[in-house]
Amino acid sequence: VKRINVAIAGLGSIGRKVAELLYARQEHYARSYGVDLRLVAVCGSRAGRADSQGLSATDLEQLLPGQCGPDFILGAEPHILIEAGPTDIRTGQPGLDYIGPALDRGIHCIVVSKGALVAAGSRLREKAAANGARLKISGATAAALPTIDILEHGLLGCEIHSIEGILNATTNYLLSAMVEDRLSLQEAVLRAQGRSMMESDPSKDIEGWDTAAKLLILANFGMAAELSLADVAVEGIQHLTLETIDDWRAQGKVPRLIGRVTRQDNGFLATVRVEPVAADDVFALVSGKTKALRIKTDVMGEIISIGTASEPTGTAAAALKDLEHILSERTVGTR
Amino acid sequence: VKRINVAIAGLGSIGRKVAELLYARQEHYARSYGVDLRLVAVCGSRAGRADSQGLSATDLEQLLPGQCGPDFILGAEPHILIEAGPTDIRTGQPGLDYIGPALDRGIHCIVVSKGALVAAGSRLREKAAANGARLKISGATAAALPTIDILEHGLLGCEIHSIEGILNATTNYLLSAMVEDRLSLQEAVLRAQGRSMMESDPSKDIEGWDTAAKLLILANFGMAAELSLADVAVEGIQHLTLETIDDWRAQGKVPRLIGRVTRQDNGFLATVRVEPVAADDVFALVSGKTKALRIKTDVMGEIISIGTASEPTGTAAAALKDLEHILSERTVGTR
Repeated sequence: VKRINVAIAGLGSIGRKVAELLYARQEHYARSYGVDLRLVAVCGSRAGRADSQGLSATDLEQLLPGQCGPDFILGAEPHILIEAGPTDIRTGQPGLDYIGPALDRGIHCIVVSKGALVAAGSRLREKAAANGARLKISGATAAALPTIDILEHGLLGCEIHSIEGILNATTNYLLSAMVEDRLSLQEAVLRAQGRSMMESDPSKDIEGWDTAAKLLILANFGMAAELSLADVAVEGIQHLTLETIDDWRAQGKVPRLIGRVTRQDNGFLATVRVEPVAADDVFALVSGKTKALRIKTDVMGEIISIGTASEPTGTAAAALKDLEHILSERTVGTR
Repeated sequence: VKRINVAIAGLGSIGRKVAELLYARQEHYARSYGVDLRLVAVCGSRAGRADSQGLSATDLEQLLPGQCGPDFILGAEPHILIEAGPTDIRTGQPGLDYIGPALDRGIHCIVVSKGALVAAGSRLREKAAANGARLKISGATAAALPTIDILEHGLLGCEIHSIEGILNATTNYLLSAMVEDRLSLQEAVLRAQGRSMMESDPSKDIEGWDTAAKLLILANFGMAAELSLADVAVEGIQHLTLETIDDWRAQGKVPRLIGRVTRQDNGFLATVRVEPVAADDVFALVSGKTKALRIKTDVMGEIISIGTASEPTGTAAAALKDLEHILSERTVGTR
C-alpha cells in the first residue's frame, strides 16, 4: 500500500465537496489503486489546517487562522495538489501562486479554477512537462460535461477542426427564461437571484467571459491553439433584446451563447456570441443549466457531448476523476 | 526509438482502413510516442502476408494464399494485435481464436468485431489481466461515438446507474425513412439496399441483435454487469407498423430503437426495443446514421454523447485511438 498525500487549496463549496467525496472514496482508492490516500493540508484564503498523518472531516470544521498560502500548502509535501480557489482570469491569482511552485517541485496539479489556466496555461504546461508532473483540468472546463477528456483521450489521433459549446450554465438558464417566459434579461437575472441560482454579480457570465475562459482553456489544451484572451472576440448576452428573440422565434430559432474555436489555415478563429440555433440542431434542446460541446474532426466526424451536473458536486467529481487518472498512471508506472 | 510491431487479423473494409490510417500516421507515432511502428502481419480469412521488417502498402495488395489464421499471425510476434474480422455473437469466432491466444502471450489486443467480446468477454478480460495485456474495445462499441471511453475514463469514480443508447446506425436510418417518408419497413430496407447503404442480410440489425451486442459489451466492460446475451430482452424494429408510428406522431413522439441497461438492487435489467421518444428529448434529434448514448450517474448527473462517423473510417479511427492509449501507457511504463 502506497501512501498518497493530497492537499486542497481553496475551501469554497467546491473545495469542501472535493474533500467530502475524497473521504467517501478512500476505500475505493485503496481497493482499486492500492493507495492509502490522505488529505494532509487544506486552506482557504485566511485559514487552513495541516496534519502529516491525514486530516479528519472534523479537522476541516476547525480551521486555524493564518494557516494558508502556497508555502503552507507546499510545506505539507503533497504528492497531488487540488486547486479550487477563486478565479481571476486576468491575473490568474490566487491559483497561480499555488500551481506554479507546485509544478516546479513535480507535484501533480488538479486545477479547478480557470484563472491560472487562462492567464498562464502554456507556461504551466511547460513546467509540468519539465518536472514530470501532471496538470489536469477537467474541473475547470465545464464540470461534469466531458470536454477535455474527449479532446485528449476520446479523439486521440484525430485532427480537431473546431469546437463549439454552450459552456456557461448561468447564461443558458437566463436565455431559457427569456425565451420561455418572455422575460427581459434584467427580469431573468432578478428571478434567478431570488431563487439563489446566481451570484450577486453575474457580469462575468453575462458578458461572456466565463464562456471565453473555458473555450480558451479547451482550445489551448485540446487543440494546441496557444491563444490568449485578447484573441477571443467576446460578446455576451447583455445586448440581446426580446425583439431579437421574437424575430428568431418566427424563424424557428432559439438564442444560445456559443463559444467557438475554428482551426484555419494560419491560426485559429475564436468567438463568443449569442447565435440563433435552428430547432433541429441538438443545441436547441440544450436548455436551462445543461451544457454541451460539439467537436468536428477529420476522421471521427462530429461528436457532441451534453451534461447536466454543475457546481459544486459535478465539478468536484470532475476534479476527482482527474485524481483517478493520475492514480491509474502511477500504478502503471510502478509495475 | 522503440520498435512496435502490429498485426491485423481481418482485412475487410475496416481492417484495410486501419492499415491505411496506420501508414498515414507513422510519423505521428514516431514524434508523439518515440516508436517505430511497423505492420508485420495481416490476414483475411484465406490469405495474408507477413514481414518482420514491416509490410508496405503495396504488400497488402499482394496477399499470399494460405497465409492466415492465429498461428500465422502470432508467429509474427506482434506487440499489438488489431482484430477486425467478421462478427458471430453466438460463437465469438473467428476473432476468439486470435484474441484468446494473443492475450495468453501478453499481446495487447484491440478488438473491433463484437463476437468474441459478447461470447467470452469476461474470460478475455481475465486473460488480459493475468498476462499484463491490454484489451481495448472502442472499435466494437459504436465506432467513433464516445462510449466505453466515457464510462471507463470520463466518468471515473462515478457510479453508473444506467446506460441507454441508439447504437445501430442501420435501424436508425430505417426508422428515419419510415417516419419522414411514411415508408413501410420493407420499403425502407429496399431503398437503403438500392443506395448500397445496407448489407444484403440486415436481419441482425433489424431484429436488434447488433444493438444488443454493443449494449452487452458496454454493460460488461463499463458497468461490470457480467451479463450474457440470454439476459437481454431483445426486440427489434421488425414488428413496428406505420399505424404505431402515426399514433406516436399524434402524441408528438418518434420511434427509436433503444438499448438500455439499468442497475437494480440485485442485478441489471437489460432491454432492446423500439420506444416512443418525446420531441424535447435529445434522442428525437438523433436521426439517420447518427448514434447516441445517455449515461446516468450518481454525482455527475446525466451525460449524453452523440456521434456521426460510422464504418469504416470512424471504426478504424476508434481502433487506432485504442492503439494510442496503449502507446501512451507504454511510454509511461518505460520512463
